[in-house]
Amino acid sequence: MAEIKHRVGIKGSAAEIFQRLTTDSGLSTWWTRDTQGAGSVGSIIEFRFGGGGPDFEVIELIPDQRVRWRHSGEMPGDWMGSEILFELKPEEKQTIVVFSHYNWPQSSDFLAHCSTKWAIFMMSLKASVETGAGKPFPDDVHIDFDE
Amino acid sequence: MAEIKHRVGIKGSAAEIFQRLTTDSGLSTWWTRDTQGAGSVGSIIEFRFGGGGPDFEVIELIPDQRVRWRHSGEMPGDWMGSEILFELKPEEKQTIVVFSHYNWPQSSDFLAHCSTKWAIFMMSLKASVETGAGKPFPDDVHIDFDE
Repeated sequence: MAEIKHRVGIKGSAAEIFQRLTTDSGLSTWWTRDTQGAGSVGSIIEFRFGGGGPDFEVIELIPDQRVRWRHSGEMPGDWMGSEILFELKPEEKQTIVVFSHYNWPQSSDFLAHCSTKWAIFMMSLKASVETGAGKPFPDDVHIDFDE
Repeated sequence: MAEIKHRVGIKGSAAEIFQRLTTDSGLSTWWTRDTQGAGSVGSIIEFRFGGGGPDFEVIELIPDQRVRWRHSGEMPGDWMGSEILFELKPEEKQTIVVFSHYNWPQSSDFLAHCSTKWAIFMMSLKASVETGAGKPFPDDVHIDFDE
């Protein structure tokens, strides 16, 4: 199995970041503005990007520490069976976020694309907390010229 | 073994990108301004970041298609034995760059940090080609608050 990992340091509390990972209003500040369904364990969150997009089931929530999702549905195909984990680790001047998107069936160019795009969205999460202005879809930073 | 992968689409020719991966003047536009030693297969390139930094030996060059480096020396420790591959794939309106940094001993928070930072530098390479203004160290985008 293959995985994507990222790590950013955010000037903000773990509680501020946890809010942005566990509520529609928080998630819509950095990934996509079209986010619905976030809630307690068992919730299905629908992320939409101009039409289609992935669903994730919330499978673990430890306040201000861990958020874990399991991919739900069939889109995109390579994400079926994958999980996403956010780990929050407070330090003196910032909170570290370690992001993992794991259980990919294989390494591929699509994984490489998603890895770069996840880095862009982690920087959007960081900006959302630090400046109040993330860059969620459809205002996201493009990584392809003709994206 | 663990790996980092990224993929960006750059509005520019494979030749323009190849130049930025194989010469001191090109590499210094997007990774670090302090780059010395780039050349043919067998060259050791020294990348410095305010003092220390990694060395890489050029082990494969296929003009406008592939660039492969093997880590040389002992810094940083987790990079010992690792290799970096850049694959260039021309499309109609852009050139795709697939980046791989593989043969890490293990997945770790340091790998996660480097994965995010490599994405930042791939975006810097993209900007270098598209706008003439990359963001190499020491003008690089920070991913930690206190970096």
